[in-house]
Amino acid sequence: MRASTDLRAHAWRAHRQPPCVIMSSMITVTVDLGQRAYPIHIGPALIDRTDLFAPHMRGGTIAIVTNETVAPLYADRLEAALAPLGKSLIRIVLPDGEVHKHWETLNLIFDRLLRERADRKTTLIALGGGVVGDMTGFAAASYMRGVPFIQVPTTLLAQVDSSVGGKTGINHPLGKNMIGAFYQPQAVIADTSVLRSLPERELAAGLAEVIKTGAIADHSFFSWIESNIETLTQYDEAALAIAVRRSCEIKAKVVGEDERESGLRAILNFGHTFGHAIEAGLGYGEWLHGEAVGCGMVMAADLSARLGLLSENARGRLLKVTREAHLPTRAPALGDDRYIDLMRVDKKAEGGEIKFVLLKQIGEAVVSTVPEADLRATLAAAV
Amino acid sequence: MRASTDLRAHAWRAHRQPPCVIMSSMITVTVDLGQRAYPIHIGPALIDRTDLFAPHMRGGTIAIVTNETVAPLYADRLEAALAPLGKSLIRIVLPDGEVHKHWETLNLIFDRLLRERADRKTTLIALGGGVVGDMTGFAAASYMRGVPFIQVPTTLLAQVDSSVGGKTGINHPLGKNMIGAFYQPQAVIADTSVLRSLPERELAAGLAEVIKTGAIADHSFFSWIESNIETLTQYDEAALAIAVRRSCEIKAKVVGEDERESGLRAILNFGHTFGHAIEAGLGYGEWLHGEAVGCGMVMAADLSARLGLLSENARGRLLKVTREAHLPTRAPALGDDRYIDLMRVDKKAEGGEIKFVLLKQIGEAVVSTVPEADLRATLAAAV
Repeated sequence: MRASTDLRAHAWRAHRQPPCVIMSSMITVTVDLGQRAYPIHIGPALIDRTDLFAPHMRGGTIAIVTNETVAPLYADRLEAALAPLGKSLIRIVLPDGEVHKHWETLNLIFDRLLRERADRKTTLIALGGGVVGDMTGFAAASYMRGVPFIQVPTTLLAQVDSSVGGKTGINHPLGKNMIGAFYQPQAVIADTSVLRSLPERELAAGLAEVIKTGAIADHSFFSWIESNIETLTQYDEAALAIAVRRSCEIKAKVVGEDERESGLRAILNFGHTFGHAIEAGLGYGEWLHGEAVGCGMVMAADLSARLGLLSENARGRLLKVTREAHLPTRAPALGDDRYIDLMRVDKKAEGGEIKFVLLKQIGEAVVSTVPEADLRATLAAAV
Repeated sequence: MRASTDLRAHAWRAHRQPPCVIMSSMITVTVDLGQRAYPIHIGPALIDRTDLFAPHMRGGTIAIVTNETVAPLYADRLEAALAPLGKSLIRIVLPDGEVHKHWETLNLIFDRLLRERADRKTTLIALGGGVVGDMTGFAAASYMRGVPFIQVPTTLLAQVDSSVGGKTGINHPLGKNMIGAFYQPQAVIADTSVLRSLPERELAAGLAEVIKTGAIADHSFFSWIESNIETLTQYDEAALAIAVRRSCEIKAKVVGEDERESGLRAILNFGHTFGHAIEAGLGYGEWLHGEAVGCGMVMAADLSARLGLLSENARGRLLKVTREAHLPTRAPALGDDRYIDLMRVDKKAEGGEIKFVLLKQIGEAVVSTVPEADLRATLAAAV
């Protein structure tokens, strides 16, 4: 209930005060993992804040890992912020896109680090979206068996979801994120000002994870999203900052309780079982991850309703807000058997049994297997 | 001093009693890492012991990862021991040798696991030497962000060193073990009976790590090795069991105090800075890892003596026992500059400064940088 009050207060301030006043304040959410606890700093123009990076740099070298799209926009600014620290800087620019999230691209990072003689105290900084963050995190987990790293997410999806929680990895032709590590960053620095450079598709993809977070864990937040969905799609920085903050708070709490996904954490995969099948089935990069998750949530809600868990009204609300976020809500026609085949390699699957994250109501999720007939009905209705 | 007494008692029993009596007993050494503590079982014919594997199998699938050389010798026996557990068994056979310890071979494991729909509770078993153990461990660390694994080392080197302590990884053309993870097994099952199938070169390579362990941490053990080196090179199972046990006890203690090599653990790399340079310089697989470590220890002892840390007598003892183990003691002529260049990417290096593990006396090691002139003198004297 507190969360709900907080959010309303913020929404109120967002309307009453000029955005710049709200924007001048930085918020810090802590991911509580004992010795590996770390801060998520959220606010405007944080990419320029030398003081936020300084506490996390031990060695003599910093390697910025970014991609061809983000580098021209933000790499110079980040390097300018780091320059006063007097470290040796390496810039590693990867090709852009989910289609490149595989071993060969990861190896470009290792090649360069070794050629530059980057040692075991080198800090990697992931400057980019989810793909850059996942690959940089896995590179940090594996280079010399582990070096420190910092996430500087530049997409909404990365700020609200993928940069938080320590999931890192690369794709395999047979499944998404199949090779990776749980490896926590030293800090997440989420600069909300950079979101204005996002293409509309990427903004929508990020909103999918925001909607997901409300749907599985916080009815009040979900209602706030419904009320503000138009503002959010219009790049309103105050509204986006609230969405990032609340999403991070919820994710930090879930991850703090179940870092390695032995139970609770699996609910964060709502929409992802269907979503991963869409991504793998169409070929990585055809749909953005968040687009596939958006459609996957609609499918998971349909399945939840078929099983009598979720009310028709709640299913409709999820469909409506997903559509209003400009996300796809009709699934690509891969064929039932292909969907089921793709979902059997999901990481939540056990002994060939597919596990789904289902909704009991807006704000409450459960993980369960389902009868195949209901699954096939959902797949048939979705396309 | 207790260690010394124990070892003498064992040596005595080894002479007085028929080997089979001693061999019937299994010894268990525990690696004390809190929640991740695990047993190292050492003894004869353990590969057939269903009861040793049973406690560590949670899921429905077991994947045995081995190589072309070991599979025909032991894979059927291991599968027979696992059969009563009623799990689905996958056998993955890799090409043999250090030259294959790279991403492409690692990916053969991932390909097969995904094709067989191995889930997140699948247990991997590494059946082989150090290369199989390191790659299987890294595969276990990375597959679906981590599955359980068991080490069944079949070489002396793997039993006394590489299977214990959780270092896993693969090589990169620019450096050995540069990509990997600290990832602990559920158990190590060291069957001393399998050592009789080892080629002589492999036995000698394992003895290098035994000698190393005595040299850095236990003068009494080192003396015992000197007294028993001929017996050890003759495949005496009782003597080998003692060597495995004491090496594991010492390594377990060091790893228990410093799992991620922030300090003490670095001493286990005695001989390895030179050794890694030899391996990388000649091309992986030209010399066995243990052969390079043997020669590397002689070089590190020479450097220690030059710096006035180690007595001439102690240096001579290390040279003599290394030679008697049938290990190379003359270094390949790569040229000083090439050696120094290769050593600069060592994982212990910091900011381009190479750190060496040096001996102050037999049984006591220190980690330090050295003046370049002394290093060059050692390199000149070594070839």
